[in-house]
Amino acid sequence: MRFEEINSLVTLIREKKPLILNITNVVTMDFIANGLLSFGASPVMSQAEQEMEELISLAGAVVINTGTLNDKFMDFCEVTALTANRLNKPIILDPVGAGASHYRTDANLKMIRDHKVSIIRGNASEILALSGERGKTKGVDSTTESDAAIENAKLVSTLFSSCVLMSGKTDVVVEGDEVGLFQRGSAMMPLITGSGCLFTAIVGAFRAVEKNCFKAAAAAAIFYGVCGERAAEGADGPGSFKMAFIDALHNTRVLK
Amino acid sequence: MRFEEINSLVTLIREKKPLILNITNVVTMDFIANGLLSFGASPVMSQAEQEMEELISLAGAVVINTGTLNDKFMDFCEVTALTANRLNKPIILDPVGAGASHYRTDANLKMIRDHKVSIIRGNASEILALSGERGKTKGVDSTTESDAAIENAKLVSTLFSSCVLMSGKTDVVVEGDEVGLFQRGSAMMPLITGSGCLFTAIVGAFRAVEKNCFKAAAAAAIFYGVCGERAAEGADGPGSFKMAFIDALHNTRVLK
Amino acid sequence: MRFEEINSLVTLIREKKPLILNITNVVTMDFIANGLLSFGASPVMSQAEQEMEELISLAGAVVINTGTLNDKFMDFCEVTALTANRLNKPIILDPVGAGASHYRTDANLKMIRDHKVSIIRGNASEILALSGERGKTKGVDSTTESDAAIENAKLVSTLFSSCVLMSGKTDVVVEGDEVGLFQRGSAMMPLITGSGCLFTAIVGAFRAVEKNCFKAAAAAAIFYGVCGERAAEGADGPGSFKMAFIDALHNTRVLK
Repeated sequence: MRFEEINSLVTLIREKKPLILNITNVVTMDFIANGLLSFGASPVMSQAEQEMEELISLAGAVVINTGTLNDKFMDFCEVTALTANRLNKPIILDPVGAGASHYRTDANLKMIRDHKVSIIRGNASEILALSGERGKTKGVDSTTESDAAIENAKLVSTLFSSCVLMSGKTDVVVEGDEVGLFQRGSAMMPLITGSGCLFTAIVGAFRAVEKNCFKAAAAAAIFYGVCGERAAEGADGPGSFKMAFIDALHNTRVLK
Repeated sequence: MRFEEINSLVTLIREKKPLILNITNVVTMDFIANGLLSFGASPVMSQAEQEMEELISLAGAVVINTGTLNDKFMDFCEVTALTANRLNKPIILDPVGAGASHYRTDANLKMIRDHKVSIIRGNASEILALSGERGKTKGVDSTTESDAAIENAKLVSTLFSSCVLMSGKTDVVVEGDEVGLFQRGSAMMPLITGSGCLFTAIVGAFRAVEKNCFKAAAAAAIFYGVCGERAAEGADGPGSFKMAFIDALHNTRVLK
Repeated sequence: MRFEEINSLVTLIREKKPLILNITNVVTMDFIANGLLSFGASPVMSQAEQEMEELISLAGAVVINTGTLNDKFMDFCEVTALTANRLNKPIILDPVGAGASHYRTDANLKMIRDHKVSIIRGNASEILALSGERGKTKGVDSTTESDAAIENAKLVSTLFSSCVLMSGKTDVVVEGDEVGLFQRGSAMMPLITGSGCLFTAIVGAFRAVEKNCFKAAAAAAIFYGVCGERAAEGADGPGSFKMAFIDALHNTRVLK
């Protein structure tokens, strides 16, 4: 993907400030909201079914993240997904911790089986879990990478007719036959909680202005990775990296 | 309002460390708690009706924020407001997202109709929604400003016998016939999530030591704005601004 | 406790990256997760009973924190504690705000009466409340210290057969007859929300690699305090201190 295209999308996001509706976990809500806002999008979080119709109508993308799921949360996701599909709004799914427990794996599989999900953003362990082979994940932030992982991503993309963004040292974007590999980012990123969650939300912001899911995911992967690289430059550890990363989302305007 | 008066209130808050009870959204709780603590007040958050009587008895102000409302949350707010009114403790309301959905607008209107709310702190869109005319808000962080907005603030103040603090580039404080305009702050403030939520909580801290709602709101608006200006001085973006803002709440001692 | 022992435990944590399961409050989840991750452990948060069996099986320690308790949360804690005891996994309890309301005091007392809790980490007010004498606490971040407090810690340790880590200017670790006093840390620590919550989680990380509860708590107290000292060196206020503290948890490798 050419940098000019990414720059155009970034400019578009900052002009349109698309509303990104986040139905998400309670751990990283603050980071997601601050990241989207710093980037230039308009985050909104909700926990009420009664406002789904109105909020989804206004939204450019609906981001669902199962990081602190339970039955009540999944019922809420069900209403959200039905409404988003009916109103033809893209759903971006972050299947946090799929593979870490059967409950998480099953809940996420149900979500992508029952609803049209535009883009799934997860790490290799999570994508493995969704591919139907049972893998092992050691936590919500773990990642493993291999060619087998890319095959899993292809399988998930085909099975559920979704674009898949499998993040890790190499970010892999798959949609049908199309595969893209992107090696941007910083080793600091897995050291901050919610770096994956915010990635997914940023994908939502790109998808809000770019209907082609593959392009939206690829642009997000490159842009997010570049922000990570810039943030890492002066960082002394995960704390200062996190602060610099929020700054970078705001300041990174032109990729060259 | 003279700086000497504000300085006295700030000193009083830091000496008395009033307990500020926050019944609030799950997105910005951490920021609210850190902001209040850095400033010098004692934050407490609760999600249990069983402790409302005791906590409100100890509190200097009760801050209600509907950022992630649902029916269960509003039931809890109902108990909280009834208890606060009975124990004669001031309620500060942040009607987050009023106008963004009918559900939010109605829930907040019910709150201010059924209970004595001392101060309402919202942006122009939210105050417009409470004024009974239906406006459009694009997200929970959006603001619009105009003379019409000031009229809305006056209307809300009169309708509900509350002091209204409508924040934006110009902060407007209205109580009955009294109107104050304050132009402090930084353009960075709308770029951090919860800058409004924390503003409301800081208003609560001032109200805990100053019974005159207009004075408390005005002092909070000026103090909060000055902290924003100081934080913006060395900030490279919303991430470093947020960090510096928490520092400024602690370090800003004397306004001149 | 010798620094060499602490250094060995820190190295072990960073090699093994033990999964620390946090059943915790919604205010400081983000800080706890970022702190554990920066330190080198693997945090996971959950709100679903259905995955307790699997997550606890994988966990090195289970941290329960009642900061935003309600009946539903305590029911969840009950299931968690029963499962952790059955699977022989250590429970580390943070009785946030015990003493601030009878509801909090009673819920925490029930927890430590009904289940085997390995380590209780609280401030003097909270430990006082658990000791059965009714004390006064002004908020969730308040602390008082005295010889009487140490007697309370001994009493709680004896009554419930738990190791007690009472934190304050002086951290006190008590298990049966063994008592250790540790004076590390920074006056900045009580100015950031969740400094106690994260302390408890870090204790969990040490306990995951050191079965002796007294040693685990003492090592955590010294290490955490040293990180606080280092973070305070260049801090301009609670905001920059918090950032530097997360960095310090990552960078502090060898105590001398």
